[in-house]
Amino acid sequence: MCNPLIRFVGHVESPLRDRAEAPLQGDEGAPEATLVFEPWVVAALDGIGPGDDVIVLTWLDRAERDVLRVHPRGDPANPECGVFATRSPDRPNPIGLHPVQVAEVDGNRMRVRNLEALDATPILDVKPVL
Amino acid sequence: MCNPLIRFVGHVESPLRDRAEAPLQGDEGAPEATLVFEPWVVAALDGIGPGDDVIVLTWLDRAERDVLRVHPRGDPANPECGVFATRSPDRPNPIGLHPVQVAEVDGNRMRVRNLEALDATPILDVKPVL
Repeated sequence: MCNPLIRFVGHVESPLRDRAEAPLQGDEGAPEATLVFEPWVVAALDGIGPGDDVIVLTWLDRAERDVLRVHPRGDPANPECGVFATRSPDRPNPIGLHPVQVAEVDGNRMRVRNLEALDATPILDVKPVL
Repeated sequence: MCNPLIRFVGHVESPLRDRAEAPLQGDEGAPEATLVFEPWVVAALDGIGPGDDVIVLTWLDRAERDVLRVHPRGDPANPECGVFATRSPDRPNPIGLHPVQVAEVDGNRMRVRNLEALDATPILDVKPVL
């Protein structure tokens, strides 16, 4: 099979504008954000409501895809290791996993708590926490 | 930005051959499996070893991408809802999230416990459990 195309199903609206100001993880002081979904995918949101814990999958479009080794958390004091052993956004397929709590769903807009993704980051998927 | 291409970084070797015989979740009796990585990505595995809990991201290549609503767990007795409220493999971007424990790493091969992905499923990424 050929490598497939990702379909963006929406994008993030957030006060976070660049990586320097974003926390490294959602539980490290990330703000509220709004997920804005494409109209064709609104039917897929049915059953998600306030208080639900979900995992948002994003495409980290400002990451580097040719990085295989990093210093964890960008700190040179941490020994270099493979990106698969870290949560670095820089990796061959820069897919972000963000556990968030839903605050409100209104049509194609979903407000969520503690999302460290940057403004305009494309959304790939939403799944319930197992 | 244009929708990007996914790069497959490896594939699954598993005794599971089709969806009918696969458990719905990894903790529902899934077998051991081996992740076989492409040679160019082996450097990214450095730092992962036996006993580590990781999340494997796969591309569920036998899923349907035009499904927006399902009966959860394929059971008509469960009221239909949106795929983003479920773990159905059928969804716009059929990305699987599989929490597994690493049993052994040997070069480009990683043996893991409790993986419900089918044989030959492409691998997208590996991340540590938060």
